[in-house]
Amino acid sequence: MTNALPPVLDRIDQDLPQSLDRLSELLRIPSISTDPAHDTDVDRAAEWLVAELAALGFDARKDATAGHPMVVATGGAADGPHLLFYGHYDVQPVDPLDLWDSPPFEPRIEDTPGGKVIRARGASDDKGQLMTFIEACRAWLAVHGDLPVKLTFCLEGEEESGSPSLVPYLEANRDALKADLALICDTGLFDAETPAVTTMLRGLLGEEIIIQGPTRDLHSGAFGGAAMNPARVLARILADLHDDQGRVTLPGFYDDVPEIPDDIRAQWEALGFDAQAFLGAVGLKHPAGEAGRSALEMVWSRPTCEINGMISGYTGAGFKTVLPARASAKVSFRLVGQQDPHKLRDAFRAFVRARVPADCSVEFREHGASPASVMETSHPAFEAARQALSDEWPKPAAFVGAGGSIPIAGYFKTILGMDSMLIGFAKDDDQIHSPNEKYDLSSFHRGVRSWARILDAVSRA
Amino acid sequence: MTNALPPVLDRIDQDLPQSLDRLSELLRIPSISTDPAHDTDVDRAAEWLVAELAALGFDARKDATAGHPMVVATGGAADGPHLLFYGHYDVQPVDPLDLWDSPPFEPRIEDTPGGKVIRARGASDDKGQLMTFIEACRAWLAVHGDLPVKLTFCLEGEEESGSPSLVPYLEANRDALKADLALICDTGLFDAETPAVTTMLRGLLGEEIIIQGPTRDLHSGAFGGAAMNPARVLARILADLHDDQGRVTLPGFYDDVPEIPDDIRAQWEALGFDAQAFLGAVGLKHPAGEAGRSALEMVWSRPTCEINGMISGYTGAGFKTVLPARASAKVSFRLVGQQDPHKLRDAFRAFVRARVPADCSVEFREHGASPASVMETSHPAFEAARQALSDEWPKPAAFVGAGGSIPIAGYFKTILGMDSMLIGFAKDDDQIHSPNEKYDLSSFHRGVRSWARILDAVSRA
Repeated sequence: MTNALPPVLDRIDQDLPQSLDRLSELLRIPSISTDPAHDTDVDRAAEWLVAELAALGFDARKDATAGHPMVVATGGAADGPHLLFYGHYDVQPVDPLDLWDSPPFEPRIEDTPGGKVIRARGASDDKGQLMTFIEACRAWLAVHGDLPVKLTFCLEGEEESGSPSLVPYLEANRDALKADLALICDTGLFDAETPAVTTMLRGLLGEEIIIQGPTRDLHSGAFGGAAMNPARVLARILADLHDDQGRVTLPGFYDDVPEIPDDIRAQWEALGFDAQAFLGAVGLKHPAGEAGRSALEMVWSRPTCEINGMISGYTGAGFKTVLPARASAKVSFRLVGQQDPHKLRDAFRAFVRARVPADCSVEFREHGASPASVMETSHPAFEAARQALSDEWPKPAAFVGAGGSIPIAGYFKTILGMDSMLIGFAKDDDQIHSPNEKYDLSSFHRGVRSWARILDAVSRA
Repeated sequence: MTNALPPVLDRIDQDLPQSLDRLSELLRIPSISTDPAHDTDVDRAAEWLVAELAALGFDARKDATAGHPMVVATGGAADGPHLLFYGHYDVQPVDPLDLWDSPPFEPRIEDTPGGKVIRARGASDDKGQLMTFIEACRAWLAVHGDLPVKLTFCLEGEEESGSPSLVPYLEANRDALKADLALICDTGLFDAETPAVTTMLRGLLGEEIIIQGPTRDLHSGAFGGAAMNPARVLARILADLHDDQGRVTLPGFYDDVPEIPDDIRAQWEALGFDAQAFLGAVGLKHPAGEAGRSALEMVWSRPTCEINGMISGYTGAGFKTVLPARASAKVSFRLVGQQDPHKLRDAFRAFVRARVPADCSVEFREHGASPASVMETSHPAFEAARQALSDEWPKPAAFVGAGGSIPIAGYFKTILGMDSMLIGFAKDDDQIHSPNEKYDLSSFHRGVRSWARILDAVSRA
């Protein structure tokens, strides 16, 4: 710790109520990127961030893309290490809305058995997280007038809709964005007391399939038995994707999937992960993946296939004896090791086509394809950040894996040629992507303090 | 033909424009019985029919049930044969609404390559059909002041939502409703030139299954591979319902399914059914049912299982990497011969439960259970009606089967102890239960004339 840090931490503590007010302002903007009805809201969130960063003295702007804009800002020390900070200001859809206990875009501070939380869509994923970093910068600038590092912000508005504009944007702005290291704030704590630097991330392949049968919905009495039912075809395809041992059946799926090295396995076992508590929190008991693999192993290091959504025919109240004209499903694969998303997309489409009978056709839609990421932890900033986090939290920080896909880390490596430190303060029970999303005030407060410590530590690493 | 008939047929021809105006009035009422939002519309349709029948001199009323009301009316000759006429005034939902070329409840007369049609939801199923009979009565009454038969009307408002109140109503009103023979107008022509008396009807078993997995929707990255996905469980169940020969796999499903007698098979073959045209009209080519069975055999005499609807997870625009908390499907079975819907309901539920893993639960909802019906055609009215139809249409009438379920015929037999003549004028391309439903003006006009002929013929049979 340098002498520069303590007054910054004090300032953060004093400014917490105002920090939460600013976060609430951002949370009130329903920036759902996947829904075109919210396009102007996404833009408003971008404008809000540009104004905030400009007010802090950064050279901030909204860069247009083919989709939602990128918020970019630069500033800080002329000669320190150069860091690129990434977060995203868009959020997931809120349906089913009737399962929310309070309106998703009216943030509320609530007392819960686990402590105070702020509840709203995006509170944890990712507005609350990105604001921890902005508030840390604010405090440092208020106390010292400048930052100990050179800083570039890159805040995305399409993370929850597959980041269609990200790669073209990074490719077109290589020189402006290249830094020594990226900081990505979109991951979680290992547990309430143990912070984490995520060094392994699963990749993602998203596909939508639409099976078309008859040219129109039919009466199941008049045509049932004679006409092919596309819902039946779809069910068969989806059922075929797993064998009875929980393994994905796509040919070649496990070819590029490595086993975890023994030392990493030992480190993970030492974390004392409680699979019963993890599943119990959502009403489950039995790990559902490949037979013989633990829940932690499944989530951090094994590839999966999930049905994210499916629909066909009549799904309203009551009953309708319709033979549907079409059936569709959204399917995603989490990828690990060297699995190639493009090769697997081809394998998936061939697998589906082989199961579409003569009287049906299939249409595919792409929804993202990113490989897994494994970080190079030899950069000294990794150990410096781990120490800084360990100073702030009750238990020492760990290098961990993560089940979710954060493709940006892979793009920073392949397009900008830099490593990323993935540090975030979300908790497993934050209900991200679900109704009643929240962020613990302890995550937010300690998160802001953690970033101040990391800026201090990395500036000297 | 008696001397009484020709002036009635003339009157029908002269009154056709007014008959169509009256039908249009009824079609403008969106009486969707399965959707509670339309409850008052269903009631309005009932009121409209009561007023029409009362204006014709019938003793008409709306009888309350636990659901939608029954329209009941009595009148006609004191001493002729006593007929019970059945039709239904409720209609199917209209979704997907964007596939309609004109608003479904704004009936329009259109010129089409096949002749003039009236287009609206319910034009064919069943408002257009039931109005053929009412208009025949109107013409007969206008010419002769009385009918040649004693007549009771029983018009239902819940046919499209599984008829939940029908059996209790029939049981509570046995004496009032019992007649010599029932006329049911809810079936079709064999083809544009060939009328039909339907003597075999498939039964229906409708079931909804809801698979619940985790207590809430999960992030597929954070939980994918560890948590059971109910959509995957549902897909497996639905896929297992058929084998690769197109046969339904429920244990015992085919136990009570008879083969068609040789004489009936010969009669059906003589009809020259064009399977290619039947399937081609909806963009299909290959009969999809049991291997080795013809399309006509599948639709008229074989039991089937169809997925009528299914939904799980995120189904909106874009993509959401959710692991859904629940998945549900509406499934129906068409039944033939002596298949027992209650026995098969038990078999289906056992089949499903055997495929629900430890971490999921299943809930079932009933949506109707009615056995198949086979009519006794030895009643002289059947042959009289067949002759009367043959006099009106270009080709002779035939006794045929039907793929759809009209449970009322079974209930009339079991509860009221009477046979039913199923006669209707719908065409295969009427798009019932689909967008752009229509009824040919030739079906309507010849239908009204057919009923006048049948009333005349049956009064003397």
